[in-house]
Amino acid sequence: MGSVFGRKLKISLFGESHGNGIGVVIDGFPAGVCVDMQRIKKEMNRRRPGGKLSTPRKEADEVEILSGVLDGHTTGAPIGAIIRNTNQHSTDYARHYDIPRPSHSDYPASVKYSGNHDIRGGGHFSARITAPLVFAGALCQTYLLEKGIHVAAHLFSVGNFLDDSFSAITYENYEALKEKDFPVLNDAAGEAMKAAISDAKEQGDSVGGIIECGIYGLSAGIGEPFFDSLESTLSHMIFSVPAVKGIEFGDGFAMATRFGSENNDCYALKDGKIVTKTNHAGGIAGGISTGMPVLFRAVLKPTASIYLPQKTLNVKTGEETELQIHGRHDPCVAVRGVPVVEAATAIAITDALLFAGE
Amino acid sequence: MGSVFGRKLKISLFGESHGNGIGVVIDGFPAGVCVDMQRIKKEMNRRRPGGKLSTPRKEADEVEILSGVLDGHTTGAPIGAIIRNTNQHSTDYARHYDIPRPSHSDYPASVKYSGNHDIRGGGHFSARITAPLVFAGALCQTYLLEKGIHVAAHLFSVGNFLDDSFSAITYENYEALKEKDFPVLNDAAGEAMKAAISDAKEQGDSVGGIIECGIYGLSAGIGEPFFDSLESTLSHMIFSVPAVKGIEFGDGFAMATRFGSENNDCYALKDGKIVTKTNHAGGIAGGISTGMPVLFRAVLKPTASIYLPQKTLNVKTGEETELQIHGRHDPCVAVRGVPVVEAATAIAITDALLFAGE
Amino acid sequence: MGSVFGRKLKISLFGESHGNGIGVVIDGFPAGVCVDMQRIKKEMNRRRPGGKLSTPRKEADEVEILSGVLDGHTTGAPIGAIIRNTNQHSTDYARHYDIPRPSHSDYPASVKYSGNHDIRGGGHFSARITAPLVFAGALCQTYLLEKGIHVAAHLFSVGNFLDDSFSAITYENYEALKEKDFPVLNDAAGEAMKAAISDAKEQGDSVGGIIECGIYGLSAGIGEPFFDSLESTLSHMIFSVPAVKGIEFGDGFAMATRFGSENNDCYALKDGKIVTKTNHAGGIAGGISTGMPVLFRAVLKPTASIYLPQKTLNVKTGEETELQIHGRHDPCVAVRGVPVVEAATAIAITDALLFAGE
Amino acid sequence: MGSVFGRKLKISLFGESHGNGIGVVIDGFPAGVCVDMQRIKKEMNRRRPGGKLSTPRKEADEVEILSGVLDGHTTGAPIGAIIRNTNQHSTDYARHYDIPRPSHSDYPASVKYSGNHDIRGGGHFSARITAPLVFAGALCQTYLLEKGIHVAAHLFSVGNFLDDSFSAITYENYEALKEKDFPVLNDAAGEAMKAAISDAKEQGDSVGGIIECGIYGLSAGIGEPFFDSLESTLSHMIFSVPAVKGIEFGDGFAMATRFGSENNDCYALKDGKIVTKTNHAGGIAGGISTGMPVLFRAVLKPTASIYLPQKTLNVKTGEETELQIHGRHDPCVAVRGVPVVEAATAIAITDALLFAGE
Repeated sequence: MGSVFGRKLKISLFGESHGNGIGVVIDGFPAGVCVDMQRIKKEMNRRRPGGKLSTPRKEADEVEILSGVLDGHTTGAPIGAIIRNTNQHSTDYARHYDIPRPSHSDYPASVKYSGNHDIRGGGHFSARITAPLVFAGALCQTYLLEKGIHVAAHLFSVGNFLDDSFSAITYENYEALKEKDFPVLNDAAGEAMKAAISDAKEQGDSVGGIIECGIYGLSAGIGEPFFDSLESTLSHMIFSVPAVKGIEFGDGFAMATRFGSENNDCYALKDGKIVTKTNHAGGIAGGISTGMPVLFRAVLKPTASIYLPQKTLNVKTGEETELQIHGRHDPCVAVRGVPVVEAATAIAITDALLFAGE
Repeated sequence: MGSVFGRKLKISLFGESHGNGIGVVIDGFPAGVCVDMQRIKKEMNRRRPGGKLSTPRKEADEVEILSGVLDGHTTGAPIGAIIRNTNQHSTDYARHYDIPRPSHSDYPASVKYSGNHDIRGGGHFSARITAPLVFAGALCQTYLLEKGIHVAAHLFSVGNFLDDSFSAITYENYEALKEKDFPVLNDAAGEAMKAAISDAKEQGDSVGGIIECGIYGLSAGIGEPFFDSLESTLSHMIFSVPAVKGIEFGDGFAMATRFGSENNDCYALKDGKIVTKTNHAGGIAGGISTGMPVLFRAVLKPTASIYLPQKTLNVKTGEETELQIHGRHDPCVAVRGVPVVEAATAIAITDALLFAGE
Repeated sequence: MGSVFGRKLKISLFGESHGNGIGVVIDGFPAGVCVDMQRIKKEMNRRRPGGKLSTPRKEADEVEILSGVLDGHTTGAPIGAIIRNTNQHSTDYARHYDIPRPSHSDYPASVKYSGNHDIRGGGHFSARITAPLVFAGALCQTYLLEKGIHVAAHLFSVGNFLDDSFSAITYENYEALKEKDFPVLNDAAGEAMKAAISDAKEQGDSVGGIIECGIYGLSAGIGEPFFDSLESTLSHMIFSVPAVKGIEFGDGFAMATRFGSENNDCYALKDGKIVTKTNHAGGIAGGISTGMPVLFRAVLKPTASIYLPQKTLNVKTGEETELQIHGRHDPCVAVRGVPVVEAATAIAITDALLFAGE
Repeated sequence: MGSVFGRKLKISLFGESHGNGIGVVIDGFPAGVCVDMQRIKKEMNRRRPGGKLSTPRKEADEVEILSGVLDGHTTGAPIGAIIRNTNQHSTDYARHYDIPRPSHSDYPASVKYSGNHDIRGGGHFSARITAPLVFAGALCQTYLLEKGIHVAAHLFSVGNFLDDSFSAITYENYEALKEKDFPVLNDAAGEAMKAAISDAKEQGDSVGGIIECGIYGLSAGIGEPFFDSLESTLSHMIFSVPAVKGIEFGDGFAMATRFGSENNDCYALKDGKIVTKTNHAGGIAGGISTGMPVLFRAVLKPTASIYLPQKTLNVKTGEETELQIHGRHDPCVAVRGVPVVEAATAIAITDALLFAGE
């Protein structure tokens, strides 16, 4: 297992979907930062299951802070926090040791842990483990806001329906975006996405999507090439978010068909500040922030757990079998993935800043 | 700087484009592995500048091994190796402190290192630093081959011209691919790519491309989620390769428009071995290898250094200026990037295996 | 803060003396190890306050395991565990921000955390934080016992009273030693130590001591020089135990007055096994285990908290003042330090073994 | 192997006693620090073999800096440096695979690396590897001096002959100490030590010693408890120095027989600065620097290589045998260990400062 992330800010996650509780220890968080319980609550609620487009599992997701906070501010000591699991249905998971769910961790985890892993609800691989990640991210966002840095994500696409892009518009309504029930820039596009998700759900299926994330206000000079470029450390973190299968910075894969003369970001002066006229690079050059918004997109695969029957294998008997997955699942994990990507990004950026000694 | 990579296998890179020499220290490499100097030479040659489609800079790239190897096998001690720089032209770089090259590290590095960085030829940010990475990768490939693991990459696209894909065909000619002058599966497609590169070069421009990489023979169970999933550690490494701006595993961004029922990889038995009928996931589920080929694609932006004049800024005076870059540059970095991506991948996989105690 | 230890086994500690709870996350622990709750309970009890020679603070120290354990065995996922604090008396600590306790963390922590640290009962610096360390150590001892490795410590000295030494006798009663109320090899020496502690307590004072620890059954070949020698990683861990101010391996400081001809450990064959005739080196040569018992001694300073009045400074006003410390403290921390040193050692050795791929 | 040290400043050592060359890569060193070649040369010379009391092996120890330095200052990029070996005598080492030298790494390394290690002159375990460590330390000392921090070490004892102690006197002649041929505070004591070393040498034997080191000018607040206390990180580094078998901070093992009332360091005001009246703790409380001088002593065992014949084992045949070691060795490694301990300390303190963001 590798459930610890970070160089100076170290995040240690634990918990399983159907265990007693989940949580996180945050080591290296600066002392003297106000702990904004309202923001924490808001972020937890954004990720929390509930609503027509997500899993029907109900969880209060009440965070109990056990250490590292005194009189409303951080002390510099590790922040330990736990969330109790309250709504587990573990009846029918045992069979997945024999009939692993397609595109789940069941089979590779079975090999890795010699069948000792907790398979109930995905165990430690469950997206539920992102709850303490969101808590840690909310703390980091408070810290970043003190430095004038905003992390904002939105649902860029679901199926073939696209939202506007941070790279095409000037976006500054970070807080308003966080208040939205359905986190898109263009609400009309959002309605089309919602319909696509509802359709998938009705058909017992799931659908993929893309999340776009922007880091606004990060000054130039952050990132540690050769190996710990900003792209390297951000992608390391973002691929931890369950279901992520790709990431691109700035214009990303579109650069494959570009000429250098089209793709280069030339420098200019704007309001006395050095900027680039375009931001194809997504705010990173040579692995270091340029002072422009850092922009990336991550693709989340369609939820692996679907109600539709699947022809697969009983790995114990070697016989082909039909599998139908019950339980409660999100038809599009990208929706609740938005606050998770924000949180993960905030953690990675906080670590990058602290490591740089800022 | 963050020029050290790895958990058990630790790679420490150093050097600048126009300094005395470049090199690498490889700590934690297993004892008793035969050092195949022919393979090392071959890999170094694949990356080495030369040929019509790359920079005219000539470098012998002779590796001198200083330690860690005795009588042709590794000793278990750190392997130190250096390569002398012989063909530096450093005349006209000083001006780039004032007029940073667009989409280069010049400006952000200037902020980060307060103008103390070596800007000649890109300094430590130069793609030249990938030479010792290829050396380290060649050693790792020898180790992996002993375990039956092949790492193979090819140029998947240049501009709008596409090669075949590892995900669409059954590929097993790993060694033949490494022998090719122009590393594509489909030579006809390769000719079109070459033409596109020549065109860009003639116009004083550059062009982007995509590299596809496959890891064949990796057994199920490798990867350390939550944070050190195989995708996380591979992407961390691959974004270290200069010019990479995006990565996708398996079908990657194409999953955004898929249904779960289309995208799931169901299990089956083939020749007595557990496989998946499809491999949309690129051989990784839950962050752990499934035993199927691990496949990913990385996009490399068009070379930032182009001959065409660019309108940009003198950051000292604040005046707009026109910049024309001289020096010697690859019109498409993705070509020589192929052996670099292979090497980087071999290093990351070797570390993952060693860390897992295999 | 640096509350994470380990390379492959990663221990993340959290908690304060007077906070809601304390705990630990253990990442990288092998799957399939039986969790011996009785051993855990026994080890926790050995460290637990109570008895005439320790602090009168009463704590049940009930460990709640939140994750990583299923049906009595480890799953391979991170093990999260918490212990509630129940018996805090926090009335009179605030003054220590102004009048830091001599030889405590109060003053340096105040500088480091700009006065934001939790000073109540020492906060995160309290020896109370060793409770979750003992839990983690108990788990590691179970793992080590499966491999035939015993970790055993005893009180080597208190004041001028000395126990027998592991280096002078052949010791194999590891489990019997753990059952003792007062962990010494020679009970008569133990009585003298107890009297010395009682005397110190009656005088409102405290007294120092030395703990000796042996690792029996560790095979040759463990340790990662140059920088991660067995001495380096063990000492790194042991200096984390509050009050430790020195460590020596084998004959340690006595070697300063020796000749090489006296100090060298020559090889011999015993029962078909390669051994050394003497073990001055404490089972480590060149930073790597030799197969002989690994032996070290650590000195623990007398408890800094004493009832006797001390002339010290009010750092806010700059005035000299007299300080009398109330609260509940151990007159000799070395006593309860014995199971803590065992636990810390077990953790460090488990990490060394796992990192070596054993 | 674990030949990489540090969190923000990362040192990667390589090389063997009889290989082509040895060296170091220093990653994370701040940009813009002047590289004082004279100081580097001086420190290298202090460690360099030569003189009546050390090994007769002659090495110029010329450092070639390959990267990371431009026009006399550091660039922020990794500093790669190599030293050629020129004076190897490798004739008679092969037999040590069968007849390992007592108290050397030969046997445990043979187990660890399955006999593949380079045994000539101790290979990577040779004290020769401390040459690049001294280079790295000299750079760090330049950096520390810019911050007003002095690292100074002296030979505290050889056999039964004691120098004065930093803890007993007020010492401020740091630079004068470095100029001495024989690094002691009290030259009369030094003469007695020299005689003891000469005696040991004449008898074909070796003798142990203790090095004392002081870090002057370190401000309060440095150190990262729980696990990365200043004692933990310093001891981790110091045990990397070959032959070190014990370390104590401040009064160390003497605290075992002390009462708290004797051992506590009470605060006082001196010249408007908060100090402690005594410094038993050696400048560290709660794992964090107090602003007083950080003091520690390390014991170095007598050189394992002695000319006197030793009765030991042929591990291949299982027969007892007599071994006489030829080759060139120091009769007291503690002498040349003084600049090495200084260098190692400077590296560890620089990393601690940089990690703290200072």
